[in-house]
Amino acid sequence: MAQDPKKPLSDIEIARQAKMQRIEAIAEKAGIPDEAFEPYGKHIAKIDLDKIPGLADRPDGKLILVTAINPTPAGEGKTTTTVGLGDGLAAIGKKTMICLREPSLGPCFGVKGGAAGGGYAQIVPMEQINLHFTGDFHAITSAHNLLSAMIDNHIYWGNSLGIDTRRVAWRRVLDMNDRSLRQINSSLGGVSNGFPREDGFDITVASEVMAVFCLAKDLADLEARLGKMIIGYTRDKKAITASDIKASSAMTVLLKDALKPNLVQTLEGNPAFVHGGPFANIAHGCNSVTATRAGLKLADYVVTEAGFGADLGAEKFFDIKCRKAGLTPAAAVIVATVRALKMHGGVPKDQLGKENLEALKKGLANLGRHVENVRKFGVPAIVAINYFTADTAAEHELLKAHCKEHFGVDAVVCSHWAEGSKGTEELARRVVALAEAPHPLDGRGFRPLYPDEMPLWDKMKTIAKEIYRASDIIADQKVRDQFREIEAAGYGNLPICVAKTQYSFSTDPSHRGAPVDHVVPIREVRLSAGAGFLVVICGEIMTMPGLPRVPSAEVIRLNSEGLIEGLF
Amino acid sequence: MAQDPKKPLSDIEIARQAKMQRIEAIAEKAGIPDEAFEPYGKHIAKIDLDKIPGLADRPDGKLILVTAINPTPAGEGKTTTTVGLGDGLAAIGKKTMICLREPSLGPCFGVKGGAAGGGYAQIVPMEQINLHFTGDFHAITSAHNLLSAMIDNHIYWGNSLGIDTRRVAWRRVLDMNDRSLRQINSSLGGVSNGFPREDGFDITVASEVMAVFCLAKDLADLEARLGKMIIGYTRDKKAITASDIKASSAMTVLLKDALKPNLVQTLEGNPAFVHGGPFANIAHGCNSVTATRAGLKLADYVVTEAGFGADLGAEKFFDIKCRKAGLTPAAAVIVATVRALKMHGGVPKDQLGKENLEALKKGLANLGRHVENVRKFGVPAIVAINYFTADTAAEHELLKAHCKEHFGVDAVVCSHWAEGSKGTEELARRVVALAEAPHPLDGRGFRPLYPDEMPLWDKMKTIAKEIYRASDIIADQKVRDQFREIEAAGYGNLPICVAKTQYSFSTDPSHRGAPVDHVVPIREVRLSAGAGFLVVICGEIMTMPGLPRVPSAEVIRLNSEGLIEGLF
Repeated sequence: MAQDPKKPLSDIEIARQAKMQRIEAIAEKAGIPDEAFEPYGKHIAKIDLDKIPGLADRPDGKLILVTAINPTPAGEGKTTTTVGLGDGLAAIGKKTMICLREPSLGPCFGVKGGAAGGGYAQIVPMEQINLHFTGDFHAITSAHNLLSAMIDNHIYWGNSLGIDTRRVAWRRVLDMNDRSLRQINSSLGGVSNGFPREDGFDITVASEVMAVFCLAKDLADLEARLGKMIIGYTRDKKAITASDIKASSAMTVLLKDALKPNLVQTLEGNPAFVHGGPFANIAHGCNSVTATRAGLKLADYVVTEAGFGADLGAEKFFDIKCRKAGLTPAAAVIVATVRALKMHGGVPKDQLGKENLEALKKGLANLGRHVENVRKFGVPAIVAINYFTADTAAEHELLKAHCKEHFGVDAVVCSHWAEGSKGTEELARRVVALAEAPHPLDGRGFRPLYPDEMPLWDKMKTIAKEIYRASDIIADQKVRDQFREIEAAGYGNLPICVAKTQYSFSTDPSHRGAPVDHVVPIREVRLSAGAGFLVVICGEIMTMPGLPRVPSAEVIRLNSEGLIEGLF
Repeated sequence: MAQDPKKPLSDIEIARQAKMQRIEAIAEKAGIPDEAFEPYGKHIAKIDLDKIPGLADRPDGKLILVTAINPTPAGEGKTTTTVGLGDGLAAIGKKTMICLREPSLGPCFGVKGGAAGGGYAQIVPMEQINLHFTGDFHAITSAHNLLSAMIDNHIYWGNSLGIDTRRVAWRRVLDMNDRSLRQINSSLGGVSNGFPREDGFDITVASEVMAVFCLAKDLADLEARLGKMIIGYTRDKKAITASDIKASSAMTVLLKDALKPNLVQTLEGNPAFVHGGPFANIAHGCNSVTATRAGLKLADYVVTEAGFGADLGAEKFFDIKCRKAGLTPAAAVIVATVRALKMHGGVPKDQLGKENLEALKKGLANLGRHVENVRKFGVPAIVAINYFTADTAAEHELLKAHCKEHFGVDAVVCSHWAEGSKGTEELARRVVALAEAPHPLDGRGFRPLYPDEMPLWDKMKTIAKEIYRASDIIADQKVRDQFREIEAAGYGNLPICVAKTQYSFSTDPSHRGAPVDHVVPIREVRLSAGAGFLVVICGEIMTMPGLPRVPSAEVIRLNSEGLIEGLF
């Protein structure tokens, strides 16, 4: 997120200097009446959407997706640009809502970080947002682990459903980086503690409850989806669901308040919903449908983002979230930086400070392919160049000209990190022009990449060929059989959620740029029947991170003024 | 809590019929300025005590402890009476604050229940209070498990402190009834997951972090106490602390907001702090020191309660909480019911509806001993008879006369369950008279049962003899050696926290009434060096409950109006 290593003020310093408005004022600006407003302190609120009269009947605003090139260690600034564009749209007079994911607490104690934008394009209060916030992830942890406890309790009291203890698929979760819980043996210690079995913990953001939470339209839909989640199998491989365990209603009770979107503000006092945060690999990586839909009813423009680069993030946003929630994106902004494009062009990280037009041109292949991909969904695109001080005018000129000439899109240099909305007004105007054009692109409008009725294997092949530009997909016979079994069980109409490296179009993270004719090996499939997608795993996926040798927790502390040090 | 099996309205129905005031109004009534006020929705707030000008310099109000006879299945209504007395004091014109513990979320999904008073003596909003509330317990869970993760991470990265993986004393926690996590093997699955070892989970309320949280005076004290917690030992039995692991500062950051007391209201609109909730067996079972101290500064009267009967609850309240926090209780109310006293007198549960003066008289021995015990601390006592409709006038008369004649205290019949403050005004007036008497009892005022400098073994023997009326305490040589080792390690000045059955003065739960000359066998000792007490375990102590055959989670649900069913 940080833009300039020589920056005079850190993100947290800028955030602390800002004079936040009371959240009542932000809610009023967003048109949220007092009945619907539930404050959490003075700068955060939950919004009870059922208490906004006539909300569902209002027309929808325009939905703008902020996505990016494949990430590199050089940084792109996708969240920062999402916030900056939101502020820019507000500055040119559009009623705007920003929709972001909630950050996970656990990783904050591993590596210094945080996820609330950067520079003068941040959402605040960043400490609370990055720690407990309004407790949504704690509620998800509780709901998930209640189901876990009820599964083992069912087995303990006679196991009338006949769950095979070797085939319990429902792990436990904690919002903590804790490698020692990845694989455990549970129910040890004798008769009164149950039947020993293999088990393990994932981090909360990897929970299917999180994905369900983010795709549910309302509490009734949430409860129905939770009930469909598969928790394990009998000895003859019959699936057992959360509904069979009679857990889904109580889980819904635990998630009742969490499902209300959280309202915060940008440094410029514009409203932002920060709500839900599923993994972008084994899940779809977007904020909640409830927040996005509410934003569309409340604002003329909703600016949102999706995890990772456009090959994973935008594809899932379109094919899973928009398809399932009936959303129509009006335009996509693809974020790139000169630095990151040079890395895609082969420049090592320590030489990014030097102008290198050759490498930039080479690296543009990555950007170009994302532009092309996004347009395959019928969504018009524009490039946002997140400005870094080491960028040269020649590099910017090359980038803009190349985008226009070769990709047919505008590229706009944005300086929101240093200047806030002043740095994105131009981008905002171009986005509005794109979104309000009567017949953008081919005039056919938004459509997912593949139809619901396409066979699962073919869906995966379509993504691999059309988006990753692979020549083929391969899998062991066992995995290919699973595709057929899942179809036979009635899940053939689900979309695919690919889990692969975010660093490359291919499954090899070191393969930057725009690789072609690679082959995508499928290692494993997992059915997320409640979330409503089939996870296709192409590579190593870590669902419980560990802490580094010197975790940032060792230096996180309250200073003498009671402010948090070491978190950012 | 429920008083009459034929009651026309349930607790939850009464609570839902009540018109809650906005929490701003309650805060204003309590004299809390807006700067210190942090709303969590419209009916709950956290109070930032540092932002109440001159709070520390104000004189203290009177502290009233509500305690009880040994609990029986017949029910006593201690929390209900605490709320009722608070409302009664307010009704006779005293500025009052009620201080209660927060309920634990996990057990709500096991057996139908809840802990917010009953009838017309309740605190609201009861659903939120019983579920996530303001997230304090989630914060404690996070802080506890961060330390756990850092311990295993330290071992993983080289174990420079030389922790013996067989001697890690710090278990993990979840706020869930989950027997299958009581005993686990962790760090399985190979080199990248750490060093396999035996481990397990307790329920969050059993965490030493919870006890520390409830005894800490402020954030600095919290951090210091967290740092002192012993997490395990080296091979040569040197203690390793949370401070050695460098975890205590980050844990404090996670607990920063949680340490602010939570303000709610009674059905009559009087303020109540509901904050902290340590186990009453392996910990001291009282709400937080921060809430109690703030209450004393804000109000003329603070009414609070302690877990279990007076043998455990009042003793720990006086010897641990009051001693360590420098609090001076002004009076104690001992709650009893005719039904429960008859059970102590030998009547089985199904015959409690019939008048039985003989059994009542016999059962009064239990009450009499608690009265005598409380007065040993220099605290004047009064008996509150929590009225049930099956009680007869003759029973009430006997009870009152017996208390006056044999115990030298008043006994007041209270009908707060059915009538709210109208049912406790008489009790409130008598409590005020007791608390404001110039030289109550022997005039020496409050004193703990034993001095800090008494040897640990003798402290335990003093409690057993003076409070439980045991003839002696016994323990294996190994346990007796531990007493000496702990003293040698510099912890000899700590108070004792006894973990034993709450159902009897003795260690045999079936031994009702007022047993004498029993022997107290000590099974185990555990040093809570951060909380600052030595836990002496005399019997089976369960620190991770399980779910019953049909957990209430199976019927907990949202109804068509969005209200929670099945929780109460």
